[in-house]
Amino acid sequence: MFKHKRQYYSDGRLKHLLTIEGLSKAHMQAIFDSAKNISTHQFSPERAHLNSVVATLFYEPSTRTRTTFEIAAQKLQAHVVNLSVPTSSALKGETLRDTVQNLAAMQTNVIILRHSSSGAAHFVAEQVPNSISVINAGDGCHAHPTQALLDMYTIQQKFKDFSQLSVAIIGDVYHSRVARSQIHALTTLGVPDIRVIAPKTLLPAELSSLGVTIYPDLQTGLNNVDVILLLRLQQERMQSGKLPIGDNYYRHYGLTEKTLRYAKPTAIVMHPGPMNRGVEIQSEIADGPSALILEQVTNGIAVRMAVIDMLIKNQRGSP
Amino acid sequence: MFKHKRQYYSDGRLKHLLTIEGLSKAHMQAIFDSAKNISTHQFSPERAHLNSVVATLFYEPSTRTRTTFEIAAQKLQAHVVNLSVPTSSALKGETLRDTVQNLAAMQTNVIILRHSSSGAAHFVAEQVPNSISVINAGDGCHAHPTQALLDMYTIQQKFKDFSQLSVAIIGDVYHSRVARSQIHALTTLGVPDIRVIAPKTLLPAELSSLGVTIYPDLQTGLNNVDVILLLRLQQERMQSGKLPIGDNYYRHYGLTEKTLRYAKPTAIVMHPGPMNRGVEIQSEIADGPSALILEQVTNGIAVRMAVIDMLIKNQRGSP
Amino acid sequence: MFKHKRQYYSDGRLKHLLTIEGLSKAHMQAIFDSAKNISTHQFSPERAHLNSVVATLFYEPSTRTRTTFEIAAQKLQAHVVNLSVPTSSALKGETLRDTVQNLAAMQTNVIILRHSSSGAAHFVAEQVPNSISVINAGDGCHAHPTQALLDMYTIQQKFKDFSQLSVAIIGDVYHSRVARSQIHALTTLGVPDIRVIAPKTLLPAELSSLGVTIYPDLQTGLNNVDVILLLRLQQERMQSGKLPIGDNYYRHYGLTEKTLRYAKPTAIVMHPGPMNRGVEIQSEIADGPSALILEQVTNGIAVRMAVIDMLIKNQRGSP
Repeated sequence: MFKHKRQYYSDGRLKHLLTIEGLSKAHMQAIFDSAKNISTHQFSPERAHLNSVVATLFYEPSTRTRTTFEIAAQKLQAHVVNLSVPTSSALKGETLRDTVQNLAAMQTNVIILRHSSSGAAHFVAEQVPNSISVINAGDGCHAHPTQALLDMYTIQQKFKDFSQLSVAIIGDVYHSRVARSQIHALTTLGVPDIRVIAPKTLLPAELSSLGVTIYPDLQTGLNNVDVILLLRLQQERMQSGKLPIGDNYYRHYGLTEKTLRYAKPTAIVMHPGPMNRGVEIQSEIADGPSALILEQVTNGIAVRMAVIDMLIKNQRGSP
Repeated sequence: MFKHKRQYYSDGRLKHLLTIEGLSKAHMQAIFDSAKNISTHQFSPERAHLNSVVATLFYEPSTRTRTTFEIAAQKLQAHVVNLSVPTSSALKGETLRDTVQNLAAMQTNVIILRHSSSGAAHFVAEQVPNSISVINAGDGCHAHPTQALLDMYTIQQKFKDFSQLSVAIIGDVYHSRVARSQIHALTTLGVPDIRVIAPKTLLPAELSSLGVTIYPDLQTGLNNVDVILLLRLQQERMQSGKLPIGDNYYRHYGLTEKTLRYAKPTAIVMHPGPMNRGVEIQSEIADGPSALILEQVTNGIAVRMAVIDMLIKNQRGSP
Repeated sequence: MFKHKRQYYSDGRLKHLLTIEGLSKAHMQAIFDSAKNISTHQFSPERAHLNSVVATLFYEPSTRTRTTFEIAAQKLQAHVVNLSVPTSSALKGETLRDTVQNLAAMQTNVIILRHSSSGAAHFVAEQVPNSISVINAGDGCHAHPTQALLDMYTIQQKFKDFSQLSVAIIGDVYHSRVARSQIHALTTLGVPDIRVIAPKTLLPAELSSLGVTIYPDLQTGLNNVDVILLLRLQQERMQSGKLPIGDNYYRHYGLTEKTLRYAKPTAIVMHPGPMNRGVEIQSEIADGPSALILEQVTNGIAVRMAVIDMLIKNQRGSP
């Protein structure tokens, strides 16, 4: 969709994290290894970025993503500034380009961007000088790479070998940047069986080209899967008419004590949050032993620390 | 009102600070001693909590409380994240429970909560794992324990011996979490004469069971008191019809140069802020020599540092 | 306009930075020298203010100014608290005076204030005790001293000798605190030829007393100038009817490839941001080689670090 060569230096090291598309298995594994090291040994002087500046620039509201990035950057000893756009120059009509060039001029090391337009992070990466890295924290319906990375890291903690897994993604793939990033990550990591379970109206046209299998219902789609990735119903991002809302959605696609039985008994359940209990998932499942939803949040900090740490280190000695 | 055993470990050490009700004199005095030590020796490596994360989660607006907590946590070298709820997942319909479980999954050490519902802090304390402490920064009309502690600490700086004091609380006790916490603290610290001066419509039904004496007017109520605790007219929290508003309130319950004379000449005047000058208090009194209102703010940082420091230390080696 | 003796200790050292009016050349040069030192040697233990608290108090929205102050304070290792006023006690009707006295009671070392009323920073400086410094980050149409200082520092990097320069200020001088501060700074630094180019309706009455020359159009006003200082059209601060809006303004006062040719070929172009591209400036000029607009932002951090560092150091050993 967007050129993904932009996220590398000429020697192949990671410069930005814009998308999972095209990110190599080796890059992902390096991030997972670093995250594991971070989880084990909380503080390390090797990961102290004492005079670095990390800026979060969120044009959409967020609790967990923004806060985990903020905690991650602080644990790396970086300075963090949060630019919340409603109280900022957006009021004065400043363009995204000017805002970003200003952040660059402030000698920010890392800009963490969330924006409602697909491609916004790529656009920003074009605007900044070589000394600055951009992390895409969600752009429109396009990508949310750190979410996919923390999801894969969580799966790897549980299963080790991706090449034996069946993974089902349930829900609103059409509007979901998370799903697109997950599908790319699962493919690169060698998952042989990637399934999407959704009503037809929530299936994007390009899905067939991504090598996933589409299932119309939970009973066939969940049969024998190891991993269930739920998506949030992005009601705020939806065009009307596309969606069997609320009760109706829950009846057909909600993960419940009944429908979870279609999957393997050892299957794990994940959700990027915030959950709509009683819409995508029954509360008993969300709080039950199969769910790794809070582990995902915990892992989110380690994975984001690993990404920020890698990008800042790569800035030194960049070609 | 809410079970207060929840705030202790099984060995009696403080785990959360949810309410003053049931908090022992020894616990309070330990906090006051620590606050005094902090005020004297600003920086101490023993109070450095270098990799701890403190989250403020405020569902009601606040300047002074939130900012003093933030400064207190920063002075303890902790990482601080502020979750302001209008720009957060509340927009996406996330429940308080899910928000808190997420903060817990982020391995936050301390959650500082303000919420409009009485009992919210108790509810949150039930949701978090053992590694996390909750500080109630105000829940509905129920409690505001750090406010009461800093008030008591301010009184102790002036008078040493609580057992000789007469204390009058003036104002809207009905809606005041501050008043409830103050009454519990004064009682536990042994103050023999606790008075409430308020119009009948602002007196809660349970007041008589708390061992306080009710006075209908300032002239009799302030007679010979050592300490005057003013309450803010919580106009934003009021049901209509309960209240002699503005001018009328000031005429009957406003502390002025005239009405202050009913108290002892050495009496001190306190207010939790923000003040409505010309409603609860005459400006000349607010800025005069009897007022300790700004000392309360200064003490608020030391007391909050003492509480956060104690809770984090208690987490280590907790049973 | 406001008494400027207030910003000094009795021995002449700087106590607050409220206005450029009356600030000596030696004070300015000391700030420029410190900023240069900061730019060269990023981190210095001599500039570490480990237990200091810097509060930003912004009653008007801002991205760049607030963020650069925040980064500057963090790079000095200070604790930073941001008070955004819509989510604060302003809702509860607290006065500016009470807010500031509270910040003072929190033992803040530096208060950075932006306010829509001219004179607000002077007012605040009167309210705080001796231990606290106030930096004016913009008050109404009065002053924006750190903006003028960073502008002068940027000019000095390019030209060394102020006594040989012709400088033109273009735009809405009437509403501009930036212009007033720039004119005072240029005058003090010895610039012999200060010009203002603006429609009559945007010229304040007091301009003639400031020793500047007024030009009605770009062709005569830009003739042979070294420095062009653009002002932002403060549309949000304008009384209606004063202004040839948008297209019309651009046609007469917009800096374009054509009008820039009136100036010297070596002329530099500056703008305090945020720019209205196509109103004050053609995009090709904004992004072209003459523009130092992003250098201004970079310099803003060093200059603000220098100012905060100087004020905190002056607090120690203040008479």
